[in-house]
Amino acid sequence: MIRCGEIIVRGFHIDIFSHVNNARYLEFMEEARWVVIDKYIGLKRMQAKGIIFVVVNININYRRPASVGDILELYLGLTKIGGKSAVFYQEIRLKGTETVVADAHVTFVFADKNTGKAVKIDDEIKRLIGKIKI
Amino acid sequence: MIRCGEIIVRGFHIDIFSHVNNARYLEFMEEARWVVIDKYIGLKRMQAKGIIFVVVNININYRRPASVGDILELYLGLTKIGGKSAVFYQEIRLKGTETVVADAHVTFVFADKNTGKAVKIDDEIKRLIGKIKI
Amino acid sequence: MIRCGEIIVRGFHIDIFSHVNNARYLEFMEEARWVVIDKYIGLKRMQAKGIIFVVVNININYRRPASVGDILELYLGLTKIGGKSAVFYQEIRLKGTETVVADAHVTFVFADKNTGKAVKIDDEIKRLIGKIKI
Amino acid sequence: MIRCGEIIVRGFHIDIFSHVNNARYLEFMEEARWVVIDKYIGLKRMQAKGIIFVVVNININYRRPASVGDILELYLGLTKIGGKSAVFYQEIRLKGTETVVADAHVTFVFADKNTGKAVKIDDEIKRLIGKIKI
Repeated sequence: MIRCGEIIVRGFHIDIFSHVNNARYLEFMEEARWVVIDKYIGLKRMQAKGIIFVVVNININYRRPASVGDILELYLGLTKIGGKSAVFYQEIRLKGTETVVADAHVTFVFADKNTGKAVKIDDEIKRLIGKIKI
Repeated sequence: MIRCGEIIVRGFHIDIFSHVNNARYLEFMEEARWVVIDKYIGLKRMQAKGIIFVVVNININYRRPASVGDILELYLGLTKIGGKSAVFYQEIRLKGTETVVADAHVTFVFADKNTGKAVKIDDEIKRLIGKIKI
Repeated sequence: MIRCGEIIVRGFHIDIFSHVNNARYLEFMEEARWVVIDKYIGLKRMQAKGIIFVVVNININYRRPASVGDILELYLGLTKIGGKSAVFYQEIRLKGTETVVADAHVTFVFADKNTGKAVKIDDEIKRLIGKIKI
Repeated sequence: MIRCGEIIVRGFHIDIFSHVNNARYLEFMEEARWVVIDKYIGLKRMQAKGIIFVVVNININYRRPASVGDILELYLGLTKIGGKSAVFYQEIRLKGTETVVADAHVTFVFADKNTGKAVKIDDEIKRLIGKIKI
């Protein structure tokens, strides 16, 4: 898996139960996907192709609570790539440990930016994100 | 399913692709769960029992994009209740239609607020949320 | 002032100090502005004029903490309208009381959607939002 | 001023007008304050003193829009410290330039964590954050 940066848990990430709120983890995971898109595809290339990145399913496990001051590491790999859709596997770990705070399978498509319909994933994109296949 | 209110999509819910951002849907769905907890269990009752509500898995489908001005309706029902965990099914629909914008299965436990460990769901809680079984 | 709806404080609005987080109040206040824009100007009218609503300054007082379960009411009025900028005064009150949780002066302009430059506020817009002058 | 890290603008920071949303800047600025609290005071020291950090006023100027891919640098300095309150000045700049995207004066107090009332800022705290006086 690719390491996509880290996040220090702050007071504004926390909810009433003193742990990082569920929705925030999705922002942390989106951050990781942007890192990967930037590095392996490029937003400009997507704009040139007239496509946008659309998440169609997220299946996320919340395994351990994270608290203020915890340093979280973001990991991401590609598990599957088909004709029109693909799947990232993402982990959020406590820095410097094997402890997984949350993990998710994220299924996505590339959609035509005008019609919003999923398009066939072309060979160039397949080759580019194929580099992070796990 | 129980109708848990509605949300008008605003400019700050939108992301770069002009649609409601993935993480926001989780806030909308959490809003629905709070409505249900308030009405069927009560935060005070949970505090008296020394338990907190902990989501352990969310499996969410993003079916249609939602845009500024769309009015979204929140629906929730209980699909399963076991010894220590239970599952809500939640839908976000375009108001006044059958169109599902997003739906999710949300698996949760009640945890001891001190140890953080999942506890057996007691009969009172089972009876209370059993009312919204679908 | 115009009443622009209400918000029930939920667990995900809360931060480490058990109160609504500073940034959230800005979302609550933006919600109130969208209500006013919808009702008194209309996003379509703005799109037809090729203008967008741009906030240039917010001066916000956090007067009382708000906690889970509090019901907040959103109020908004126009205090000043000039050639190119105008000022809303916004209050968030505890429902059914005169208690102000937060208040703000919000200075805004209308900008050309292509150049991003502030444009002269035209007579139609002045007349429309002039209705909520306080 | 102290440099408190940087943030790359992502798709989920953006709102309907394709720019970073107003409320997000407050999260970015809160991030900078946590960096400073961590480094110059310490959350543990505050907990030992039984105090919490409470913002009472933010006066923020939105000077330039920021867009996806922009790298923002966070800066913070102390401008004033009195008996019970103090003021940070914060800037968000486009990385590697003098361009200020947003700046704010943030007035804060330390409150007793039980009563919520502002307490006298003690000499130790004054000395510690006095180091970043500008």
